[in-house]
Amino acid sequence: MLVVMKRQATKDEVHQVVQAIERAGYVARVIEGGERVAIGILQNLGPVDPTPFLHLPGVKDAIPVTKPYKLVSREFSPADTLITVGDCRVGGDHFMLIAGPCAVESEEQALTIAREVKRDGARFFRGGAYKPRTSPYSFQGLGEEGLRILARVREETGLYIVTEALDHEICDLVEECADIIQIGARNMQNFSLLKRAGRARKPILLKRGLAATIQELLMAAEYIISEGNPQVILCERGVRTFADHSRNTLDLSAIPVVRKESPLPIIVDPSHACGRRDQVIPMSRAAVAAGAQGLMVEVHHEPHKALSDGPQALFPIQFEELVRGILPLLTESQRAELHPEPR
Amino acid sequence: MLVVMKRQATKDEVHQVVQAIERAGYVARVIEGGERVAIGILQNLGPVDPTPFLHLPGVKDAIPVTKPYKLVSREFSPADTLITVGDCRVGGDHFMLIAGPCAVESEEQALTIAREVKRDGARFFRGGAYKPRTSPYSFQGLGEEGLRILARVREETGLYIVTEALDHEICDLVEECADIIQIGARNMQNFSLLKRAGRARKPILLKRGLAATIQELLMAAEYIISEGNPQVILCERGVRTFADHSRNTLDLSAIPVVRKESPLPIIVDPSHACGRRDQVIPMSRAAVAAGAQGLMVEVHHEPHKALSDGPQALFPIQFEELVRGILPLLTESQRAELHPEPR
Amino acid sequence: MLVVMKRQATKDEVHQVVQAIERAGYVARVIEGGERVAIGILQNLGPVDPTPFLHLPGVKDAIPVTKPYKLVSREFSPADTLITVGDCRVGGDHFMLIAGPCAVESEEQALTIAREVKRDGARFFRGGAYKPRTSPYSFQGLGEEGLRILARVREETGLYIVTEALDHEICDLVEECADIIQIGARNMQNFSLLKRAGRARKPILLKRGLAATIQELLMAAEYIISEGNPQVILCERGVRTFADHSRNTLDLSAIPVVRKESPLPIIVDPSHACGRRDQVIPMSRAAVAAGAQGLMVEVHHEPHKALSDGPQALFPIQFEELVRGILPLLTESQRAELHPEPR
Amino acid sequence: MLVVMKRQATKDEVHQVVQAIERAGYVARVIEGGERVAIGILQNLGPVDPTPFLHLPGVKDAIPVTKPYKLVSREFSPADTLITVGDCRVGGDHFMLIAGPCAVESEEQALTIAREVKRDGARFFRGGAYKPRTSPYSFQGLGEEGLRILARVREETGLYIVTEALDHEICDLVEECADIIQIGARNMQNFSLLKRAGRARKPILLKRGLAATIQELLMAAEYIISEGNPQVILCERGVRTFADHSRNTLDLSAIPVVRKESPLPIIVDPSHACGRRDQVIPMSRAAVAAGAQGLMVEVHHEPHKALSDGPQALFPIQFEELVRGILPLLTESQRAELHPEPR
Repeated sequence: MLVVMKRQATKDEVHQVVQAIERAGYVARVIEGGERVAIGILQNLGPVDPTPFLHLPGVKDAIPVTKPYKLVSREFSPADTLITVGDCRVGGDHFMLIAGPCAVESEEQALTIAREVKRDGARFFRGGAYKPRTSPYSFQGLGEEGLRILARVREETGLYIVTEALDHEICDLVEECADIIQIGARNMQNFSLLKRAGRARKPILLKRGLAATIQELLMAAEYIISEGNPQVILCERGVRTFADHSRNTLDLSAIPVVRKESPLPIIVDPSHACGRRDQVIPMSRAAVAAGAQGLMVEVHHEPHKALSDGPQALFPIQFEELVRGILPLLTESQRAELHPEPR
Repeated sequence: MLVVMKRQATKDEVHQVVQAIERAGYVARVIEGGERVAIGILQNLGPVDPTPFLHLPGVKDAIPVTKPYKLVSREFSPADTLITVGDCRVGGDHFMLIAGPCAVESEEQALTIAREVKRDGARFFRGGAYKPRTSPYSFQGLGEEGLRILARVREETGLYIVTEALDHEICDLVEECADIIQIGARNMQNFSLLKRAGRARKPILLKRGLAATIQELLMAAEYIISEGNPQVILCERGVRTFADHSRNTLDLSAIPVVRKESPLPIIVDPSHACGRRDQVIPMSRAAVAAGAQGLMVEVHHEPHKALSDGPQALFPIQFEELVRGILPLLTESQRAELHPEPR
Repeated sequence: MLVVMKRQATKDEVHQVVQAIERAGYVARVIEGGERVAIGILQNLGPVDPTPFLHLPGVKDAIPVTKPYKLVSREFSPADTLITVGDCRVGGDHFMLIAGPCAVESEEQALTIAREVKRDGARFFRGGAYKPRTSPYSFQGLGEEGLRILARVREETGLYIVTEALDHEICDLVEECADIIQIGARNMQNFSLLKRAGRARKPILLKRGLAATIQELLMAAEYIISEGNPQVILCERGVRTFADHSRNTLDLSAIPVVRKESPLPIIVDPSHACGRRDQVIPMSRAAVAAGAQGLMVEVHHEPHKALSDGPQALFPIQFEELVRGILPLLTESQRAELHPEPR
Repeated sequence: MLVVMKRQATKDEVHQVVQAIERAGYVARVIEGGERVAIGILQNLGPVDPTPFLHLPGVKDAIPVTKPYKLVSREFSPADTLITVGDCRVGGDHFMLIAGPCAVESEEQALTIAREVKRDGARFFRGGAYKPRTSPYSFQGLGEEGLRILARVREETGLYIVTEALDHEICDLVEECADIIQIGARNMQNFSLLKRAGRARKPILLKRGLAATIQELLMAAEYIISEGNPQVILCERGVRTFADHSRNTLDLSAIPVVRKESPLPIIVDPSHACGRRDQVIPMSRAAVAAGAQGLMVEVHHEPHKALSDGPQALFPIQFEELVRGILPLLTESQRAELHPEPR
């Protein structure tokens, strides 16, 4: 249930509605819109009777929300969510280009790649310090040393840092050091971590799970927002199917669906979806053409030596080709945000 | 096994190799390339010993083909397959735009839609006269009357006709009347129909099955080509997954894979993949950006009255928007092929 | 819509209802039940108004059928369908054991295997004369010679013959020679073949498609029955998923669902589902425990020499073990039907 | 790499091998088998040269392990893993019957159900105190109060308690109060939680993820065991596919594969797989017939009032029917373990 206030409603009137909702045993969440205030009624198990709220002063309407999600819905926040990271903006008509290696392997490796991708227009650097690996014997990331290197990359290049948190403890460290906290596909329904992310002061990059429906993805974002952090960026990265020509099947129709249902930005990670270098460029173009508000791409200057996911990492020269390939699909102002340097 | 002849090899030398292959109990198929002739050795159950053929006059090399398909592979025919339909060409750098209703419902309906889509740039008209329907009680198409209407559409508009054949008998009728014979997703592994299509004198539009791998799609095309008809156009139309926000999951990574493995043209049918009108335009753009060599789109002037698949059919005004949306993604010569008329 | 007649309704009253239905533009199908007659109203595109039929003499009730299928539903025929093949019965509380090689390779091979599986209790012999193969270069079956061998197997062993038809023409030959006509998974939605099967005078074994829902399977059976052949046996044989430890994923929950929804018998083919010999015995036991009314198992005396699907064929000694393993799960009367001979 | 010691090898010889492995930069893990000791070489990124270890005194052999998992493999521990919980044993030829509600809702509810399922033979009680729910607004479990109720159930009925841990903090509480710690399907690749479980002193019930391969399930168990906790029970609970007649598709072929590859016990949760009460009994029978070493079943005395997953919970009378249905499939000693009381 969404209680919509009149334009001229006073703060006091809003406060009275909140109190009435809480007296009825629900949780109220005030949403400041551009024009007017709306108040979400949360944690109702069944349908809510709107009558007691409709008669309060300043109330314009009460809209039943039949979808299971509320805070992530366009009904709740019609305008695109805009997220600010330093001098960059994410969402709406902005375009977010994230690039970097799967894992941070050394300061030299990270800085080399960061300088390359920056030159081609990336404003965000990705690189895992803590890696979720299928095998306990695979390289698990450099840990705190990796975070230190990422901080050094930002200092040296000005790129903003995106890196993954695997649990509460790591989330504390990542929140300190990174600009955007990533929650990986395998943790999309780690509800404890989602709640922790909802208390973070940094934006969250939430990747779709390998077998998650769009509704489940939005519900995972709802966990984060309902804890108080509205800065969520969604990421389509392929789902698991019978198809064997790519590692996962990139489900680009997620983009129009999310953009219709939710104001949250949605970007695409073609590298993990494809798992093969030779599909990354065409799928990046397809993602942008379908309306993705950003890309996250794996790049490595020596993919054959990469400690993880080498076969899907682009060579820097291929990343340059990727950027050249998507420029014609962007708006003029989006192109201006990338401003790749001539090589 | 592929026996590659020297450039200057004579017809007689080619004939001798064919005879040697047949004496060894295999089937030989001569392929005339631009520069030289190659001869495929087919129907070998195990590996073939190349020695007896390597010593014949005019033979340059014998290449073992480890993939299960041969005639559909780029190894066999390195250059893109070009298919001629009247004054149109399909494949290579050409762009094929097919549009029309799911089913032919009446002459008036077909002509009305045909005139609309022609104005927006379509050169090919789709419309089923024989419909494969899940239920025996659903509208099964107008049958021969539908074929008659399609012939009338071509006569009146100059559009080329694409329509589906469900069995041998229908294939005889469709071959007579249509320009391109469609084999639907549910018949992709109807091997008897594939063999019949291989004996047709018209190009075949072969749709990927709902649970078919790319290799199986290529093997289905191999059935057609190995019977003597090299004019095959592949069509990605979504695969069946757990995802429930679209009818099927459009697997656009099929495009770079097919284009790398095979010279055959590949187009995309976003209408059946999405099953919902509001996803068709972004997915069409994505398909073209990924390298699709054509689109097949359902359009209806009165979708709410359509006898089948109304919810996915675009209104003519939306089809116009679709074409406007893909024009910037095409090359200049492709745009020239479409030449939409001003409305 | 189902018009249910009173018990004492006369033939003439039934005839009047049929005429009234046909005058209204629908198709009527009379179903003789044990106790009373019901008349199905078919080919209605929208809901049917029952009023005109309710007032006719002899009519007891008119039941709207909301499911898309009618003739295959338990609502239409509450009692289990029983199918007679020679001295065997299929469906209800009977248990059908089919065994044999993937393909008929020679008379000696077929007879050797037939004698083995007969000794272990099989009453039906399977073996393909026409094989649907992914590759045009794979062994396609012995064709008419294979049918001749199957006739010889029946003559020699008394086993009833199950073999696959790929198209109309083959269906004519198979109908002549076999006891049960198989329609394979890849042809489950070959609607032209389904209609042909509906005009056959032999029972049809209809296998579930690799990506077919249960509703689609039942609708495929509806095609056959609506053409006049009510003798349909359904077969679960695994669906295509991401799982890679078996060729397909055997979906045994199909059994309780089909048995609840439909009176048709359902059996299981564990060999094609698993694709690996070592899973066939446990999955056979699971199928029987879940309520399968039969099994179809691949057996070969020399699997390593089989021309197709060798890795999934059981050795005769393993088939004996399989039968021993399912006997305790059968009822006494089912065990009596098998009566394996002591070895 | 697995270094296998001679039968008569001394403790000192084992110690020397461990030291040699550690000097080479690897991690050694000593495994006490029934007959002899083996030493696993862990955390090698590439192949290990066996030569330096083969020459040490007491060493019999060094076996390269090509599968990505080691500690969970039958190669490493040939005999079935046996886990002791009070006077119950899990694994091998034992049969584990777990039953109870989805969530603990009140002391009265939990005790009522516990008494019912105990009478029918269950020795283990399931019930969530912390529930992973798709929606943040759904009932999240009673938390610590729920754990207190579970302790009361054990005290009152003698049933052993299985309940889920969602993160490190909850794991501390659950480890204190429960007999078996459950890790849910959505956390199967929450590697941080897996490592924590590996340091627990209680057995872990690890559920297969909705899109996890068997290899990934075994690798998740490897995480737990490699941290020092060898008491892992695997649980098949259905995977996500296109099929829509059950909530998930129960993949029973997982059972023979796991039992062949690994000594760990594997049980089945038919309730979550089916999501519908009417499929639970046949699927339970199928699971046992396929070789499952236990079942976990949801039971509720008032399913229509259940705060979560009511539609899949059996009524107590149905649970009794389920037990009666599986008894004939169990061995005599397994039946003795259940000893249901007469009602």
